Amino acid sequence: MAIKHALPVTREQDFAAWYQAVIAEADLAEESGVRGCMVIRPWGYGIWERIQRLLDDRIKATGHENCYFPLFIPLSYFEKEAEHVEGFAKEMAVVTHHRLVGDGKGGLTPDPEAKLEEPLVVRPTSETVIGAAFARWVQSWRDLPVLINQWANVVRWEMRTRMFLRTAEFLWQEGHTAHASADEAREETLRMLEVYREFAETCLALPVIAGEKPENERFPGAVATYSIEAMMQDGKALQAGTSHFLGTNFASAQNIRFQNAEGQLELANTTSWGVSTRMIGGVIMVHGDDDGLRVPPRIAPWQVVIVPMLRDQPEDGAIVAYCRELQGELAKLSAFGEPVRALLDQRHGKAANKRWSWVKKGAPVIIEVGGRDVAGGNVSVIRRDRLYREDGKVDSAISQRDAFLGEAAGLLEAIQAALHAEATERLRDGIGPVADWAGVEARFAESARNPGWAEVAWSRPSGDELDAVVERLKALKLTIRNAPMGQGRPEGSCVFTGRPAVERVLIGRAY
Amino acid sequence: MAIKHALPVTREQDFAAWYQAVIAEADLAEESGVRGCMVIRPWGYGIWERIQRLLDDRIKATGHENCYFPLFIPLSYFEKEAEHVEGFAKEMAVVTHHRLVGDGKGGLTPDPEAKLEEPLVVRPTSETVIGAAFARWVQSWRDLPVLINQWANVVRWEMRTRMFLRTAEFLWQEGHTAHASADEAREETLRMLEVYREFAETCLALPVIAGEKPENERFPGAVATYSIEAMMQDGKALQAGTSHFLGTNFASAQNIRFQNAEGQLELANTTSWGVSTRMIGGVIMVHGDDDGLRVPPRIAPWQVVIVPMLRDQPEDGAIVAYCRELQGELAKLSAFGEPVRALLDQRHGKAANKRWSWVKKGAPVIIEVGGRDVAGGNVSVIRRDRLYREDGKVDSAISQRDAFLGEAAGLLEAIQAALHAEATERLRDGIGPVADWAGVEARFAESARNPGWAEVAWSRPSGDELDAVVERLKALKLTIRNAPMGQGRPEGSCVFTGRPAVERVLIGRAY
Repeated sequence: MAIKHALPVTREQDFAAWYQAVIAEADLAEESGVRGCMVIRPWGYGIWERIQRLLDDRIKATGHENCYFPLFIPLSYFEKEAEHVEGFAKEMAVVTHHRLVGDGKGGLTPDPEAKLEEPLVVRPTSETVIGAAFARWVQSWRDLPVLINQWANVVRWEMRTRMFLRTAEFLWQEGHTAHASADEAREETLRMLEVYREFAETCLALPVIAGEKPENERFPGAVATYSIEAMMQDGKALQAGTSHFLGTNFASAQNIRFQNAEGQLELANTTSWGVSTRMIGGVIMVHGDDDGLRVPPRIAPWQVVIVPMLRDQPEDGAIVAYCRELQGELAKLSAFGEPVRALLDQRHGKAANKRWSWVKKGAPVIIEVGGRDVAGGNVSVIRRDRLYREDGKVDSAISQRDAFLGEAAGLLEAIQAALHAEATERLRDGIGPVADWAGVEARFAESARNPGWAEVAWSRPSGDELDAVVERLKALKLTIRNAPMGQGRPEGSCVFTGRPAVERVLIGRAY
Repeated sequence: MAIKHALPVTREQDFAAWYQAVIAEADLAEESGVRGCMVIRPWGYGIWERIQRLLDDRIKATGHENCYFPLFIPLSYFEKEAEHVEGFAKEMAVVTHHRLVGDGKGGLTPDPEAKLEEPLVVRPTSETVIGAAFARWVQSWRDLPVLINQWANVVRWEMRTRMFLRTAEFLWQEGHTAHASADEAREETLRMLEVYREFAETCLALPVIAGEKPENERFPGAVATYSIEAMMQDGKALQAGTSHFLGTNFASAQNIRFQNAEGQLELANTTSWGVSTRMIGGVIMVHGDDDGLRVPPRIAPWQVVIVPMLRDQPEDGAIVAYCRELQGELAKLSAFGEPVRALLDQRHGKAANKRWSWVKKGAPVIIEVGGRDVAGGNVSVIRRDRLYREDGKVDSAISQRDAFLGEAAGLLEAIQAALHAEATERLRDGIGPVADWAGVEARFAESARNPGWAEVAWSRPSGDELDAVVERLKALKLTIRNAPMGQGRPEGSCVFTGRPAVERVLIGRAY
């Protein structure tokens, strides 16, 4: 018997349409009516809240404190950072007026009398305004390091938007730090890259490759940019987090100076690093299947959803009571060091519809309870990561209630591990070493399905030579993703220049 | 011996200057260089994070889910809500361009080629954009109630700003709900008012009066507005949270309709409710003293701060080790159902300076540990809410380490209770019944110091008659704060109209 899937389109048929379908059918987000901005619905926002909580714990554990800086940045701040602003292509939302007034035709219009003397830019990122604060805060070496993080909304006026992946407004955290030495700042940059890597693997079940971006992909003004790259099921890369060593470039523009222990004035070295709601797009494209999303248990707003199968019969009361007790028992359990999050779904509607709504949303475990289960002291357990039996039917396993409670925490941990293992295998299989340019062309030929990424040795060219490499790759819609951390010097020669190779880089198509 | 306080100005000398001094000396926030916007520093933001966590738990426990809606609202959304926008005096930040371009003089300017067809308003509140989503989400009675909350930044272009109390950009939560009946929506409005009241009393140690605002103080478009009002140490009122019953006014403008169980189309009834970073201003002005802030333990980022008294001597290592172990033991304790938050202050600098920095910040308990303490197995304990002995010296009590650990959780709970009791007594003493208009004039005469609030009986006039009352009060810089909940019908006649009174209202000066 053929498996009938819950989504109107499969990954195989049209990956991009499937992605949009998951977002709609799992109630993650929707178009808002405001260009490029989405409404993040409770299930999507619940996942973001889990990401925030787990990542924030890690950011604090590494000594950072949260602050909040203004949404608006005066235009003049950007003028100081010509190089910096160049990188944002100047596509930013600009506030020019502070009042509305009637337009004489029953509508409203910006009041010409209330034009701002200096326009304000809605922050696309906060290096400038946070740097200005650092300049006030840092006087002496005793004030360093400054280790700050901010959770905020930012706006970049993207021409083509796609929910979670590229939206005009998005939510993120941006860390900003200042240090007494370049070594210390580099160490911080790599420490936060590792925090992101561990967080992605552990919490999102997202295998990633941490590495350094090539010169042409650096954050504008950065001395070095590092990223974590995840592989989507269509083989494309998603840059899921970045960490930048800024050297003294920003400190110099913003005058962040300190008196060192010898009494001399020095420029601070700064870093910045961030991840955003984009990560949720990565979770969808790595863990989703043709029935919708599969949320890793650690970031699932509800890990176990209990669906009572009611029939408007007198026994309904006993079913609900049984479910409520089960919910209470689950909440007493601990998985991943936190209480299990169990929901009793008491909405109006048919149990079968509720089941499928939770399948599409990707709740890790769905429990169904009918009158017969209550009588037998049982529960019916659906494990979202293994939805079907071999015969194509949904694998709903009857279990003794107490046996299930005994296994529930372990089950959640097993699901987390299984999702991670599945994605790790795909990532490993998706990366192939390629020895020369002909090999690159063959791997990424138009007829090639899901070519993944190629690992190639290169001589790390820069300037015009790098530009030429970038152009050659661009013709195949490819980019250099990063040079993985911790590699040794490779044998052989550069696939682009033919000169002796100095490192290996990953190349692929990307979101 | 006179007590020497840590702030440059006392409450008695100049309450407004004292407020600014606390914010500066406690490192809560600072001016950002962006008009009307502040930088919230780690200690201030840490308090906000605690407020968020504790209030969010309560918002979720009452069945609400968090979402995120766009920062930008198209101008046309406001045109639909003429009445609504009127109330915001149209002072809003307006985005008109989406790109910057060189101005030919080395600077930047909004690109005339990138003018938006429809200007976007930076949200001053989100009724319009959330209402548009509700109209999409609600089709049938089965979709109701919709219970949504959002944590976000909002912008209102205030002419005169004051940190935390009135800033152009501020942080808040805004709850928005839709219901099948007016009764249910009214019940929700009062439920959230009660959540705010309980939260303010329990978590912020802020005694408040919950009640209904008079007609002239209603949220624009609301059928009824309720508030919690707190009394500052200068006797002024601070509206610390509001809850609005919006009837079908917004549903009608936004077309939020549903098919009822009988198949007929009905308008939903909606509510909205919010609290903001303004609450932190209230905490400062209720609990601060002439040495800075006193943070109630439940919302203190660090509840116990351990200051090692180091002297660049070999024994320093033993002192730090002793402190670290103490910190570990404290973290194992539970106060208010959560692990105790204990910090070991290892910054550079003199112990005395560190002590005073924590006094100014208002950490509830400060522990000092010197070589002699280590030798004796002791700690020196400073309780921030009772800083001085009768002789004017700081009350630093030596305690056996284990005895202190045994009492620490109880001590934090006692401090929370003491701050609440002190403020409750002040609120009670600050409210006086006044029988007639002459009494009001006398109580609020220019010569009167700290007149607090008057409780007066009134006939609940409306329209022109209410306008006249408002004008009379305005001449004395007074406003009606609210009509406290749960009161019976008073005896006697209205102090304004002389007609039979129907309820009592509180009047006072306000922030």
